[in-house]
Amino acid sequence: MDEILSPSCMSPEDLRQFLQPGFDPEAKRRAVNEGRLLAKGLPVSPGVTSGRIKLHADDAEAWVHRYGKGNPEGRVILVREIKPEDIRGIMAATGILTATGDASSHTALVSQQLGKVCIVGCNVLNTDYAKGTISVEEKVLKEGDWLSIDGYSGEVFAGQLPIRTPDVIDVLLAKSMRPEQSIVYQQFAEIMSWADSHRKLRVRANADLPRQAEAAIAFGAEGIGLCRTEHMFFDHIEPMREMILARTPEQRRQALLQLLPYQKAQFAEMFRAVQGRPVAIRTLDPPLHEFLPHDAEGQREVAAKMGVEPEVIAECVKALYEFNPMLGFRGCRLGIVYPEITAMQCRAIFEAASKVHREGTPVEPEIMIPMMSWPAELRAQARIVHETAQDVFQETGVVIRYLVGAMIELPRACLVADKIAQEAQFFTFSTNDLTQTCLGMSRDDYGNFIRHYTQHGILSRDPFQTIDQDGVGALIRLAVERGRAMRPDLKIGICGEHGSDPDTIRFCHDIGLDYVSAAPFRVPTARLAAGQAAFHTKGVASGA
Amino acid sequence: MDEILSPSCMSPEDLRQFLQPGFDPEAKRRAVNEGRLLAKGLPVSPGVTSGRIKLHADDAEAWVHRYGKGNPEGRVILVREIKPEDIRGIMAATGILTATGDASSHTALVSQQLGKVCIVGCNVLNTDYAKGTISVEEKVLKEGDWLSIDGYSGEVFAGQLPIRTPDVIDVLLAKSMRPEQSIVYQQFAEIMSWADSHRKLRVRANADLPRQAEAAIAFGAEGIGLCRTEHMFFDHIEPMREMILARTPEQRRQALLQLLPYQKAQFAEMFRAVQGRPVAIRTLDPPLHEFLPHDAEGQREVAAKMGVEPEVIAECVKALYEFNPMLGFRGCRLGIVYPEITAMQCRAIFEAASKVHREGTPVEPEIMIPMMSWPAELRAQARIVHETAQDVFQETGVVIRYLVGAMIELPRACLVADKIAQEAQFFTFSTNDLTQTCLGMSRDDYGNFIRHYTQHGILSRDPFQTIDQDGVGALIRLAVERGRAMRPDLKIGICGEHGSDPDTIRFCHDIGLDYVSAAPFRVPTARLAAGQAAFHTKGVASGA
Repeated sequence: MDEILSPSCMSPEDLRQFLQPGFDPEAKRRAVNEGRLLAKGLPVSPGVTSGRIKLHADDAEAWVHRYGKGNPEGRVILVREIKPEDIRGIMAATGILTATGDASSHTALVSQQLGKVCIVGCNVLNTDYAKGTISVEEKVLKEGDWLSIDGYSGEVFAGQLPIRTPDVIDVLLAKSMRPEQSIVYQQFAEIMSWADSHRKLRVRANADLPRQAEAAIAFGAEGIGLCRTEHMFFDHIEPMREMILARTPEQRRQALLQLLPYQKAQFAEMFRAVQGRPVAIRTLDPPLHEFLPHDAEGQREVAAKMGVEPEVIAECVKALYEFNPMLGFRGCRLGIVYPEITAMQCRAIFEAASKVHREGTPVEPEIMIPMMSWPAELRAQARIVHETAQDVFQETGVVIRYLVGAMIELPRACLVADKIAQEAQFFTFSTNDLTQTCLGMSRDDYGNFIRHYTQHGILSRDPFQTIDQDGVGALIRLAVERGRAMRPDLKIGICGEHGSDPDTIRFCHDIGLDYVSAAPFRVPTARLAAGQAAFHTKGVASGA
Repeated sequence: MDEILSPSCMSPEDLRQFLQPGFDPEAKRRAVNEGRLLAKGLPVSPGVTSGRIKLHADDAEAWVHRYGKGNPEGRVILVREIKPEDIRGIMAATGILTATGDASSHTALVSQQLGKVCIVGCNVLNTDYAKGTISVEEKVLKEGDWLSIDGYSGEVFAGQLPIRTPDVIDVLLAKSMRPEQSIVYQQFAEIMSWADSHRKLRVRANADLPRQAEAAIAFGAEGIGLCRTEHMFFDHIEPMREMILARTPEQRRQALLQLLPYQKAQFAEMFRAVQGRPVAIRTLDPPLHEFLPHDAEGQREVAAKMGVEPEVIAECVKALYEFNPMLGFRGCRLGIVYPEITAMQCRAIFEAASKVHREGTPVEPEIMIPMMSWPAELRAQARIVHETAQDVFQETGVVIRYLVGAMIELPRACLVADKIAQEAQFFTFSTNDLTQTCLGMSRDDYGNFIRHYTQHGILSRDPFQTIDQDGVGALIRLAVERGRAMRPDLKIGICGEHGSDPDTIRFCHDIGLDYVSAAPFRVPTARLAAGQAAFHTKGVASGA
């Protein structure tokens, strides 16, 4: 390995060169010469992809469904701002392109999490939803035309461009190449091996789906630090809607019963994918109104499907309306008011765990309760977890080792961390939400002032990219101290976008966390950053 | 004074009996017998009033305007959920009635702040905005009919009921009675005198308008702890809208110039009302989209008035749209991105202060910067305050003593309070917002789960009524310690709804704050609670 790639001083971000599939350079040059380079936006989720232009999530899903997954003809680029209800369309697409937004927009974050190529803020782009076209000046493309987007450079091309997969991906993910066939892969493996030999922090991945988890493990993740379960509800939205409209706990249980087998199958696949590594599963978190349509047309459709009057849906949406959904009826507040939801999710987790355990694969579920402020919230939710576990163990005759822990994402939880640690066996800091509440700054809404703040020296770093050490970091330190004072073996990690930021990882190393959890493709970056943090700290300790 | 009213152990809430104007008991009995008692809701802002039913803020304002303020024929009860743009209608009304909401709803809080009688959650009430009627079962009343509401009992009566003013109000506010004419007043005065002889905390009032400040002073307030300036922008909304739509700082300054004389006059009246007592003035705080209409009809009207295309307004509203306005572009973030706004407000304050000072009345302005997270924010805003002050002092030849301080309402501000205190001469805790961010719980949205929480023992008290000592209180303690370590003479108070809650006042006494600030009519309650806190602490200290 040459000195440019000396693992102790290279930038962890430079690892991208090993992981980037890129457009074939020769083909790209030709496309530019032919005038097919349409625009340049802000690349926010890496990768390159070509696909058919689709302007609506439903159409994207239908198109992919028609051709079957994996069929190159069925690849889709979704050109629109993402809303939570678009989830199936986003999952169907390989790339997302928007005219507005920035690195911290919802579209950017969802794309990163789902590993979709994404370019935002491409403001020369005009989208005409009525005509089904996108245009840049006089160049007009229709829905169904081919588009190619480069999530490293932000370039948007008309037409299709051939892609070259990097060796590391061929070796680790596609397994179409053996390590000894690639010098580039060997360089990468050497850097990772240096990092792993030094680092003290464990590195996990945030993954909601089994195939994300598989990729993460291939990149060296030692477990799943955040498995969100929202998609399991969005994918089966009809019983979820019945649950929301239910008037009695019994109706609610009936609706949830329909979700149970599906969630159980999903958890089982997840446990198989990680092969015995720990999986931290977060119980349902988003506000319920996200599961209902907000427009009259959508409400009429749902009402017809469910056999109720449209007014019933409209009233329910109205009752669930929130001025500040971030600070509303979400997180464990849902599971406390509707304990049936938590019970169903726990049953799915433990039944799946028992099944996979019987198949011969060890399982290590960690159940994570979100949005806690009061120790009593965790006590109430933990009781449901333990009772459900006992029931399932009795029914299946299999006993599984599991943990119950708290997602620490509110300042109050940090302040009373000692009391929370009485009940919690682990803490996971959700640094995104903790940043939002500690700074009183919504990630979706700070675009109107953040640029002014960084340009005028009010802020030196974007606090959603690198942890704000004096504020959010001070709360985390406090929670670590208080939590470990109560329970010395408390396992503590962070998840969220900060989990792959090298400076944040250094901070996590310094305050003695056990692990960081990053997006699957960011796991190598996190491993290297963790290795460097340990290496340089040691250097400082033993140095002059 | 008899033992029931022994000031050391009576409940401070019992002072209401001295301050309540009530419906004449005999007339009330007759109304019940005649079947005119329509409903009972949740009384959230004390007092009683009769007025004409109005369903729209504009109509309420027009009606009162037609008859002139003070004319009993022109009294109005507004039956609707309050939105920020309704402010002039609310100010015109003497009472507010809603079918929905609870003690923590926006309607309740605004009514309390403005001293309007208010009943919410009156859920038997049907309002038909199209027909202009309200009804309870078969009883139907039309817009313009008389209605009487009792903000102590929650009772709603059809028709008009005579009101009896309490002696304390006649003596202190109306000045229609001399102290020696009323035994009840003398009892009240004795309790207040006991409280004042013991208390260590100073008691201020939250008042936005001169007449609120006058009432507060009559009730013994020693200054204004929170003077919000929003109404000065809402009252002159056209130049404010021009300011928002401005494309250059120069256009913005031109629009603001129109607001200057009005704000100056308002501040001058405020200074005259408080007669030399300190007035803490908060610079503009709410998000800008609150000043623009959100419906197409309203946008067309504004566009026509301003001579622009409706699309211009619609686009501006879209650009300012926020998912979580509580955590968005508001507070000092506005004054930092648009320093012209802060400069205009400071000029209005200092010009008014110089004028009133020259009239022979001393003035003590305290300029309060809201929604701070970073010391650099305060530095940037304080620079504008100081520069404007110097300019005005030079122009007028009058030098005024003033303070610049920080409104502490975000967890981060508490954590870096030492650094903020380098610049801030005082701290005011806005406990409402600090509770919202510390607990991740919006006051407007917690209705969907808070009742379940208190009923199921997750929470013992509503944290928006009594301060959450372990969470929010821990942040406040930390900020007081760190702030005073940097600046031992730092003046510290709290404002917000908690400022008149006896348990919160006890907490403020215990941690050594300088003052609490309460709604004008709650000042006597706060004085007594502060006296009791000191009395009982002394008792404990000198006791066994």
